[in-house]
Amino acid sequence: MSDQFKPRKKYPYFAEETSVDVVNARMGGDINPRLREVMTAVVKHLHAAVKEIEPTHEEWLAAIKFLTAVGHKCTDWRQEFILLSDVLGVSMLVDSINHRRPSGATENTILGPFYVPEAPRYPPGQNICLDGKGEPMVVRGHVLDTNGAPIAGALVDVWQTNDDGFYDVQQKGVQPDWNLRGVFTTDEKGEYWFRSSKPRYYPIPDDGPVGQLLGDLGRHPNRAAHIHFIVSAEGYDPVITHIFTPDCEYLDQDAVFGVKDSLIAAFDKRTDQAEAGRLGFQAPYWSVDWDFVLANKKQVS
Amino acid sequence: MSDQFKPRKKYPYFAEETSVDVVNARMGGDINPRLREVMTAVVKHLHAAVKEIEPTHEEWLAAIKFLTAVGHKCTDWRQEFILLSDVLGVSMLVDSINHRRPSGATENTILGPFYVPEAPRYPPGQNICLDGKGEPMVVRGHVLDTNGAPIAGALVDVWQTNDDGFYDVQQKGVQPDWNLRGVFTTDEKGEYWFRSSKPRYYPIPDDGPVGQLLGDLGRHPNRAAHIHFIVSAEGYDPVITHIFTPDCEYLDQDAVFGVKDSLIAAFDKRTDQAEAGRLGFQAPYWSVDWDFVLANKKQVS
Repeated sequence: MSDQFKPRKKYPYFAEETSVDVVNARMGGDINPRLREVMTAVVKHLHAAVKEIEPTHEEWLAAIKFLTAVGHKCTDWRQEFILLSDVLGVSMLVDSINHRRPSGATENTILGPFYVPEAPRYPPGQNICLDGKGEPMVVRGHVLDTNGAPIAGALVDVWQTNDDGFYDVQQKGVQPDWNLRGVFTTDEKGEYWFRSSKPRYYPIPDDGPVGQLLGDLGRHPNRAAHIHFIVSAEGYDPVITHIFTPDCEYLDQDAVFGVKDSLIAAFDKRTDQAEAGRLGFQAPYWSVDWDFVLANKKQVS
Repeated sequence: MSDQFKPRKKYPYFAEETSVDVVNARMGGDINPRLREVMTAVVKHLHAAVKEIEPTHEEWLAAIKFLTAVGHKCTDWRQEFILLSDVLGVSMLVDSINHRRPSGATENTILGPFYVPEAPRYPPGQNICLDGKGEPMVVRGHVLDTNGAPIAGALVDVWQTNDDGFYDVQQKGVQPDWNLRGVFTTDEKGEYWFRSSKPRYYPIPDDGPVGQLLGDLGRHPNRAAHIHFIVSAEGYDPVITHIFTPDCEYLDQDAVFGVKDSLIAAFDKRTDQAEAGRLGFQAPYWSVDWDFVLANKKQVS
């Protein structure tokens, strides 16, 4: 360095060894403390990754181009960065961290991008399958507290794909509006029931850079067959969850890691035509008994 | 889980504790081994960051929205993800990892987004400042090998902003084409020289989400005043570097961490009008002596 001029040096220059401290030292003194905490950790782990990977300039540029392509794929109705978070297990990790429930309460799993609020409120037993496709299914159960006491007036908000593997909102004008969605209310015994069709596996949208990445990683884009639920009641911690069919070939390899042991239900195949007829079905049909257990808000706060 | 059906389970289900292994176990057996190595490290460090930060769902969504905004800001002529990499010190880290040179060779620093190949080839002494703005400057020196021997026929490719803080390509039609860019060739004594104007600090583009982040972090967007160089010669490892002025107020806080001690030059202010006149300048002018040292390709392979 020139002797002619010795600049004041409040901040250190960059060096490979001290890179994390050099970058984090630049943050101002008067910023949001949570932002400081988050960005300190982001820089630390980001630099640790770069130091382990030792990317070439070309590999770094490939990462820049990948992230740019993910961004360019995002629109008002397509969120490719959420897909990326999903397939890298980050969405499930964030969900797990935020839903460490007391033992016995129904476990959470990811919300997914296809939830629509304000679905129709239905009376008990309503068939939400409006396109008549797929194998008929009846789901019956209770909403309970962690002591096993019934919760009356709980809301059971349910949604799933049709038998072609698409949500209604992915096929506007093709499927009936609100196909395979509805909100049910538990009775004084905490009971709910509804009719629908057995869920099937389906691929997450894989025509973008995340689908390309999955392919390059030797992974498929399929989600294990499931039904989505949000179950809520006054004074209780709401549960965002799925139930999974036990016979799906993708159960152990859900593309977004949503499966938990405790969320796999028994799907009983019933062949009695008289029973089926009382439900308005042709035999065979599927019968599922499933209880949800909600933690009191005081138990999770 | 249902007793009725025990699915084969090749892959484990997701759990917070084992999240990294669960995600990485999904990669296929027959994929690009470097991609496997990179993504294994990405998932490991990404999950470590999430576990340390413990983001709420809202914070996770804020991160998704930030990355989406960065992607949407990218165009053919604006690369916001490179800016993000720059301000988080990642670009300098990648540059450092890829340019661990033998002691004595000129150090690298980042290329930046404003390099344009195929700039005009000029004879020694050419003034590359075509808009006449700023304080006149002459730069003189040698290109040497690590033994101090001159390298004849080396190319010295130089570019810088004008005195308003913009590169020519940022002000097409405002600045003359190829303003403050040129390629010089060393003579048989390894010497080069050119005339220009003293560089000044300038902000990186800060009207996007990265500029917003810098503001939220209490950081400014300014780069310390510098001149860019790519110096290359047959058989030698090319150097992508800057020289910095020692008197810039942002020297110790370059927004992209490009400054290294060894790249700060002496800028001598000369007031002799006779000397200035021989260079075609009005006094005062700035005189910079600067040698570049290239490592033999065998020294860095």
